[in-house]
Amino acid sequence: MDTLDNWGRWGADDELGTLNLITPEARARGAAEARTGRAVSLALPIEPTPLLSGPFARLTEDASPVQQIMAYTGSPASATADLMLVTNHHPRSTHLDALGHQVRDGQVYPGRPLGEAVTMGGVRHGSTTAFAAGIVTRGVFLDLAADGPVPGGHGVTGEDLDAAEERQGVRLESGDALVVRFGWSASPDPARPMPGMSLDAVRWMHERGVSVYAGDIADAHPPLVPGVPGPVHAVALPGLGLPLVDAAELTELTAVCAELGRWAFLFTAAPPRIHGLTGVPVNPLAIF
Amino acid sequence: MDTLDNWGRWGADDELGTLNLITPEARARGAAEARTGRAVSLALPIEPTPLLSGPFARLTEDASPVQQIMAYTGSPASATADLMLVTNHHPRSTHLDALGHQVRDGQVYPGRPLGEAVTMGGVRHGSTTAFAAGIVTRGVFLDLAADGPVPGGHGVTGEDLDAAEERQGVRLESGDALVVRFGWSASPDPARPMPGMSLDAVRWMHERGVSVYAGDIADAHPPLVPGVPGPVHAVALPGLGLPLVDAAELTELTAVCAELGRWAFLFTAAPPRIHGLTGVPVNPLAIF
Amino acid sequence: MDTLDNWGRWGADDELGTLNLITPEARARGAAEARTGRAVSLALPIEPTPLLSGPFARLTEDASPVQQIMAYTGSPASATADLMLVTNHHPRSTHLDALGHQVRDGQVYPGRPLGEAVTMGGVRHGSTTAFAAGIVTRGVFLDLAADGPVPGGHGVTGEDLDAAEERQGVRLESGDALVVRFGWSASPDPARPMPGMSLDAVRWMHERGVSVYAGDIADAHPPLVPGVPGPVHAVALPGLGLPLVDAAELTELTAVCAELGRWAFLFTAAPPRIHGLTGVPVNPLAIF
Amino acid sequence: MDTLDNWGRWGADDELGTLNLITPEARARGAAEARTGRAVSLALPIEPTPLLSGPFARLTEDASPVQQIMAYTGSPASATADLMLVTNHHPRSTHLDALGHQVRDGQVYPGRPLGEAVTMGGVRHGSTTAFAAGIVTRGVFLDLAADGPVPGGHGVTGEDLDAAEERQGVRLESGDALVVRFGWSASPDPARPMPGMSLDAVRWMHERGVSVYAGDIADAHPPLVPGVPGPVHAVALPGLGLPLVDAAELTELTAVCAELGRWAFLFTAAPPRIHGLTGVPVNPLAIF
Repeated sequence: MDTLDNWGRWGADDELGTLNLITPEARARGAAEARTGRAVSLALPIEPTPLLSGPFARLTEDASPVQQIMAYTGSPASATADLMLVTNHHPRSTHLDALGHQVRDGQVYPGRPLGEAVTMGGVRHGSTTAFAAGIVTRGVFLDLAADGPVPGGHGVTGEDLDAAEERQGVRLESGDALVVRFGWSASPDPARPMPGMSLDAVRWMHERGVSVYAGDIADAHPPLVPGVPGPVHAVALPGLGLPLVDAAELTELTAVCAELGRWAFLFTAAPPRIHGLTGVPVNPLAIF
Repeated sequence: MDTLDNWGRWGADDELGTLNLITPEARARGAAEARTGRAVSLALPIEPTPLLSGPFARLTEDASPVQQIMAYTGSPASATADLMLVTNHHPRSTHLDALGHQVRDGQVYPGRPLGEAVTMGGVRHGSTTAFAAGIVTRGVFLDLAADGPVPGGHGVTGEDLDAAEERQGVRLESGDALVVRFGWSASPDPARPMPGMSLDAVRWMHERGVSVYAGDIADAHPPLVPGVPGPVHAVALPGLGLPLVDAAELTELTAVCAELGRWAFLFTAAPPRIHGLTGVPVNPLAIF
Repeated sequence: MDTLDNWGRWGADDELGTLNLITPEARARGAAEARTGRAVSLALPIEPTPLLSGPFARLTEDASPVQQIMAYTGSPASATADLMLVTNHHPRSTHLDALGHQVRDGQVYPGRPLGEAVTMGGVRHGSTTAFAAGIVTRGVFLDLAADGPVPGGHGVTGEDLDAAEERQGVRLESGDALVVRFGWSASPDPARPMPGMSLDAVRWMHERGVSVYAGDIADAHPPLVPGVPGPVHAVALPGLGLPLVDAAELTELTAVCAELGRWAFLFTAAPPRIHGLTGVPVNPLAIF
Repeated sequence: MDTLDNWGRWGADDELGTLNLITPEARARGAAEARTGRAVSLALPIEPTPLLSGPFARLTEDASPVQQIMAYTGSPASATADLMLVTNHHPRSTHLDALGHQVRDGQVYPGRPLGEAVTMGGVRHGSTTAFAAGIVTRGVFLDLAADGPVPGGHGVTGEDLDAAEERQGVRLESGDALVVRFGWSASPDPARPMPGMSLDAVRWMHERGVSVYAGDIADAHPPLVPGVPGPVHAVALPGLGLPLVDAAELTELTAVCAELGRWAFLFTAAPPRIHGLTGVPVNPLAIF
């Protein structure tokens, strides 16, 4: 486990983690993939639910990541306006986890005490501030579900990822974004065990130099090792400083990659430029 | 004014407006500009204010577009989480206005009655749903402030835009995003008259085929014609169906364009994929 | 209908409406009913739902009038704190409707134009400010459901109210609060027609001098006269200036009145002293 | 300190704390004080600030305990509605602290582990559920500021309270609500030391059987004993199980008591009947 650690690698004040791996070379590699400008969103659509419940709205709701309220703007109205309330970490919202989202032994990456990094007024170290300029690099898509969904309870290994690369004829290089499909829907049956990344796969990401992870799944639920939190959230995020895109939607990407016979693209993830959050909704694009 | 109208041009059910102008050619033109992958954010940074006021936070605040609350996640906490409350239209937030944001004679683009397009539960026609896949095209930056901020009260004309093109040696083509700098800060003195686009400039945008507008300013405040709402919000948005990026931050873009001697780039605007809103925060990128 | 109108009765600036009827005599009549200090709440209990949805809460909810979020207060926590989001008008929340809640011909009681009385920043005339000092008077309980719930679709008349008085041996006097039980639960089957007050009953309230109305039901749903909004909300509130307690819970009150053989009590309704709202949750008490 | 403890006094499951002292005798004593029905609110008025900031509202605000948003209800609007966001603990909001608001050695009254009593979804033990039926008892007002505000930094003692009783000719009995005026405004200069209750005064409350405390001040700020949290919040609330009304407004009460020559009244505190909160805004009444 000791090798699965980037604490100190980029200094004690670092807030970028593995985004440091996105060198000019990685960016240029990404730009070279943008040829036709065709773009695919990797985000789940979100239908907000009305913030105003009761006589003015439905009485029972699926809890949405976003609640919306239409504002009074005069009568009659010459413009419309609204306000939204966003749950930044939600299983049906494609969102970026900031490095301060996970705590390891009372500390956040790369070793800051929780009490100093996080206050009642927001995150002071390891927040979404790191995403201010957007993430732009080459993206590589490994489709683990080419022959059907990854079976429930399976822990994906580095070997599985190697095999996907070989099958697709693509190779992830240091600084690339790793996009992975397990082939599971965003709202699986909570009673049915999901697959997830194993610690071995996290080691693979570390050795290869993954800069950011985006998957329809990251960690299994329930955990692969009973009682041990999943390695992507509990090891890669706080230990490697690896930002995560949770709950990516990869159905359209799969179809387009198959159509084009290409598994690499320009990857962009530019969430609203809001500082100090633990996470933020994002609409990552694959641009071909 | 009758020529400044796209109602019906793409059908009675259209929700894309001038985004229809982003053809495969426009996209390819954009992709061709992505060479090094260097990216510049066109968004203002947002510092959230604490949603929880009082003993647990400051007592007086600048109203931020975003209010944040850190959630209780157990004691001690093994993860951090938060929730944010977002004012979708805010002068200090870089955001995309959806077509249903403006009402013209009781209707929204392209002629839907307000009562049908907008409900207490959200926008049903002309919402942010149109931005689900992101906006990807070529961006052209016209810097009207090369010799200092545009004077307060000035109405920018088509001639001004032509002159900027000529000065910079660039030409906006149909389907391009138009990025314009007036050289004003995001929080101008409210008592000092701002410049803005004139109706003539909106006509220029229409004739040229601008797909999306992003500026540090769009309409003047107070209105150039006393009592008449600004033409970008009151004519271009509801009449042309032209989506707007309000409050773009263009300082870094200006420096990078000058450094590179380039005024065109791959433009991306991919806000969180949230349906049914009147507007949404966005972090547009210029990728070189 | 012209007689069902108090516009101008207490001046053009009045914001109290029928609360003006609570004279020192009415208050003293109320105080005289407080003998043992036994108190009964007339409010439905509200179970808040978590504001933070998703991994940290249930995925499907009955929409509650109140959403709550527990705030991060350090790790470990030495105190707990929270924030709540309240839908002020909700069918499962016992709340006081302010006079500005209903609009009649573009005006609110007693004839103020809506555009002047109500702004995007809150209610300027006819708000909950009128309840700042609490409502304290005699309460009279008329139980229309002594022999079972009032039948669906029935429009309660003045004669029905007279009969209840006679049956119970009590008489409402000017300035008293009228508490009425239809015997329906707070969450009736929305498909099943409810009973409600008829216009005749509103006339009775006007003639008798009811100062405030509290019922488990006020208006029928669907309206008794198809297409015509219910007379309590559409006539009594904006026309008489009669504040309403919507969704009172009267089960315990019924039992205690029967036990004591008393149908009058000291009535208090003291909602949080918040100005400028259209309505506010309240916990009215009957003190014997 | 060991005597300042009610843990176990009313059982291990108790959630009422000193509200258990409100016996039928105490209630009857309260009812006997209600003679004319004249009522005085003990709550500070709250002016909500608009939840929607930016172009639709002011840009800088005093943080209010309540934020309000006026909801779109159609165009034109036939009714008005709103939603409010409430900070339950706020120095300018008169509110009731629930027993679970304070943690002592990882436990809340009367010895429940924090992790069991408090969850991300709300408070399960020691919440505002205890106030569901309202608090109704005799109130006794001790005015410590008859000759001017209590000096900053002074720790009020039991002797001070005895002296006030003697001066006013009133005596608090077991089960009564204690209302205390220090004579300080709700928004004192944060740099100027406030007075507060000493541990000795908390012992007095314990011995006398105070059921609920309401004061313009409870604990001093900064703490009377440097580094030691104030005894009302840190000892009386979690140890005695004594509910607190924070930030009572006592100016009008002082005038009315002086006018009537009476220092006792029927005390009611009936906050909205919302379960599971750590605190709740309240409008306590003194009824004469």
